[in-house]
Amino acid sequence: MPTLVMKFGGTSVANLDRIRRAAKRVGVEVAKGYDVIVIVSAMSGKTNELVGWVNETSPLFDAREYDAVVSSGENVTAGLMALTLQEMQIPARSWQGWQVPLLTTSAHGQARIEDIPTENINAKFGEGMKVAVVAGFQGLSPEGRITTLGRGGSDTTAVAFAAAFDAERCDIYTDVDGIYTTDPRICQKARKLDRIAFEEMLELASLGAKVLQTRSVEMAMRYKVKLRVLSSFEEQSDEAGTLVCDEDEIMESNVVAGVAYSRDEAQMTLLSVADRPGIAALIFGKLSDAGVNVDMIVQDISEDGRTNMTFSLPTDQVQRADIAMKEIRGNELNFDKLIVDSDVAKVSVVGIGMRSQSGVAAKMFKILSDEGVNIKVITTSEIKISVLVDRKYMELAVQALHDAFELEKAA
Amino acid sequence: MPTLVMKFGGTSVANLDRIRRAAKRVGVEVAKGYDVIVIVSAMSGKTNELVGWVNETSPLFDAREYDAVVSSGENVTAGLMALTLQEMQIPARSWQGWQVPLLTTSAHGQARIEDIPTENINAKFGEGMKVAVVAGFQGLSPEGRITTLGRGGSDTTAVAFAAAFDAERCDIYTDVDGIYTTDPRICQKARKLDRIAFEEMLELASLGAKVLQTRSVEMAMRYKVKLRVLSSFEEQSDEAGTLVCDEDEIMESNVVAGVAYSRDEAQMTLLSVADRPGIAALIFGKLSDAGVNVDMIVQDISEDGRTNMTFSLPTDQVQRADIAMKEIRGNELNFDKLIVDSDVAKVSVVGIGMRSQSGVAAKMFKILSDEGVNIKVITTSEIKISVLVDRKYMELAVQALHDAFELEKAA
Repeated sequence: MPTLVMKFGGTSVANLDRIRRAAKRVGVEVAKGYDVIVIVSAMSGKTNELVGWVNETSPLFDAREYDAVVSSGENVTAGLMALTLQEMQIPARSWQGWQVPLLTTSAHGQARIEDIPTENINAKFGEGMKVAVVAGFQGLSPEGRITTLGRGGSDTTAVAFAAAFDAERCDIYTDVDGIYTTDPRICQKARKLDRIAFEEMLELASLGAKVLQTRSVEMAMRYKVKLRVLSSFEEQSDEAGTLVCDEDEIMESNVVAGVAYSRDEAQMTLLSVADRPGIAALIFGKLSDAGVNVDMIVQDISEDGRTNMTFSLPTDQVQRADIAMKEIRGNELNFDKLIVDSDVAKVSVVGIGMRSQSGVAAKMFKILSDEGVNIKVITTSEIKISVLVDRKYMELAVQALHDAFELEKAA
Repeated sequence: MPTLVMKFGGTSVANLDRIRRAAKRVGVEVAKGYDVIVIVSAMSGKTNELVGWVNETSPLFDAREYDAVVSSGENVTAGLMALTLQEMQIPARSWQGWQVPLLTTSAHGQARIEDIPTENINAKFGEGMKVAVVAGFQGLSPEGRITTLGRGGSDTTAVAFAAAFDAERCDIYTDVDGIYTTDPRICQKARKLDRIAFEEMLELASLGAKVLQTRSVEMAMRYKVKLRVLSSFEEQSDEAGTLVCDEDEIMESNVVAGVAYSRDEAQMTLLSVADRPGIAALIFGKLSDAGVNVDMIVQDISEDGRTNMTFSLPTDQVQRADIAMKEIRGNELNFDKLIVDSDVAKVSVVGIGMRSQSGVAAKMFKILSDEGVNIKVITTSEIKISVLVDRKYMELAVQALHDAFELEKAA
C-alpha cells in the first residue's frame, strides 16, 4: 500500500467538530487505498495554556519537566482522532512519541529527531490498521524522558514520518489554502502558487513561516519529501493547495516566484570605525555572543583608514546589540557614534529563475526608484535579492514589485 | 532513608496555588529526612472534561484510546508539581506510568496493578533526588499501551507504591480532614476518628468512599500499609487526620466505630416463589448476569411450598433487575408479583469490637424501635449490622444510633 502522511495543525483540530471534519479528509485518502499516518497538534490554545502554567510555576524551568507537561496536549488530540476514525469504521489507533518510538536527542524543548523505527507501525498496518494517528511535536530521549521538538515541531514530525515511511506525499492541513506570491493582506493581486521549489519556500520564510516551519522545509528538501500545504476548511481536490517540491518537478515558473517582507527589522550603523583587519570579526563575534541575529551587513568604502559599518537585526534585539557594542567600545573598538534606525523594513524578491536570468536586481532597483523608494542596504543570494527600506514604503514596494514582475499571472 | 508516600487528589492540585501549597507539605516531610514519592491526580475538572470529549466522540469507545486520552491530566500535574518542588530547591522529577514502569493488566479503564519495579526510582533516590512525582491512575499494559486503573485509581496507585517501596506510611491528602464516626452533615455530633481499623474502614464505605477507594483500603490491608487521610487545606501536625491501620495498632476503641448509611437503596420482593432447590441460584444468577449488585437478601419461611424472596439493590439498577426477572418469569421462574420499594435506605453500625462483645444487634434494634423506626431487612457480618428502613427515617436512625452508642466520646 502507498503511504500518505497528513498533518493537522491546532486550528484544524480545535474542537470535536473540527476533528471530525479532519477525520473525513483522512477517510477520503483511506478510500483511495492509502495507508495513512496522521500527525496531530494540540487543540489550539492548549499548548499555550500548558506553557503558561509552566512559566508561572518556574520561570527558569527544567526543560525535561516542561516537555513532560507541554507534550500532553498532542496526546489528547491523537486519542480523540483515533476514536473519531473508529466511529467512521476506519481501523485506527493512536501513538504517543515514546510508543513509536520517535527517537530524539536530549536537547529538551528543541530536540532533533534521530530515528523513527518503522517496525511497530508497519506491523499494525500489516494487521489491517489503516490509520496511525501520531501525537506530533514529541519524542523520546536516550534517557527515556519525553522531549519536544520546539514550536511548530509537528510539521517536522510529519516530514520525518514521510521520509521514514517513504510516503508518497506529506499533506500539511492548516488554516490557509496555500502559499501565495505575497501576503494577500498587503497586495490584493497576490496569487496562490500551485507549486513552489523547496529553495524558494525557504527564502520566502516571511510568507511561509506561519504556515510551514523552516526546519520542516529543510528536512523535506534533504529527503525529497513532497510537501503539500492546503486548507482544512475547504473541500479539497487532488490539486488543491500548494505543492512544495524539488525544482525539477516544476515545469515552468516565473523568474520571481514571490515577494517577501519583514517588518521587524532595525538598522544599526557604527560611524567611523577603524578600518583594520579583524575589526568585522570583533564586531560580529561580539554580537553573536550576545545572541543577536545579524542579517544584512554593509561596509562603506574606507576613507582615511576609517569606515562606517551598517547591519540589520530584528527590532527586539536592538537593546542587546546596543549593550554589546558599548561593552567593547574604547577598549577594543573605536567608533564615533552608534546610530539606530528602528523604522525600516526588508523587502525581498525570490525565485530560482534568477539563477539563469540576469538583470533581476537591476529591474528591482529601477522599480523601487520609479516609486521614489530609497534603498538603504542591499543583499543578494543566488535566488534572492533583499533591500532595506524605510518602513513607510514597505507596502508600496511590495505592491510595485508584485505588479512589475507580473506575479498575478501564472507562468 | 525511610520512604513516605503522599497522595494529592484533584481538589488539592486544582490550580497552581494549591500545587504550591501541596509542595510545601512535601517540603516539610523532605526536611524530616524522608525520600518522598508523591502521587498526583489531575487538576479537578480536567479528567471530567477529557471523559466528556471521549464520550461525545465515541459513545462505545475503544477503551485503549480512552485511557490514552484520559491519562493526560495526571501527566500535567506531575510535571507542574516537580517544577514547583524544584523552585523550592528540592531535587524532584516527574514519572509517567510507563516510565516507572507501573505494570498492569490489559483491562483498559479498570486495569489491575501487576508489579511496580523499584529500580528506576530508587536509582534516582541514590543520585540525590528527594521526591519522585508520579502521575497517578495510570500504568502500562503488556502490549505497551497506556492503561488506567478506573476512577479513584490514584489512591490505589499510592498504596501500591507504598507497598512496593516499603514506605513508612501512605498519606492521602484530600478535601476532608479525616474519617468521621458518621456523616457530619447528618449528625452534628459526628467526631473525627484518630484511628480506624482496615476492616472497619471497608465496612464504612459509605462514609469513606468519597475519601478512600475501597480497592485502595483492601490493598493497604493486604500489604499492611499504614494509610493516613488528612486535609490538604489545613496546617498539619504528625497526628492530624485519621490513621487507617491494622487493628493491633489500635489500643482502645469503642465497640461501634461508626454509623454508615446509604440513600441509594431499593428493595425488591418476589411474592410466592416456588421454594425448591436451585431457585435462589436461578434468581441471583440471573441478576448477576444482568449486572445487578444485590446487597441484602431475605427469604421468608416457606409456606405450602412457596416463599417470598426480598433483596436490596442500588436504585439505579432497579429497571435492569425488573427486566431480568420478567425475562425468566413463566419459563424457569414462577412468582405471583414483583414489588419494588425505592423509598428505602440502609443504616449500618460498624466496629471490630462487636467480635468480642455480644448484644450490639439487640441494642441497635431496641434503639430503632424506641424511635418508632420499622426495620424491613436485616443483615449482619462479623463487624457490621445493617438494616433497611424507610428513607424518611434515615437521618433519625443515624442520629439515634450515634447518640446511644456514645460515638461522640473517644474510647
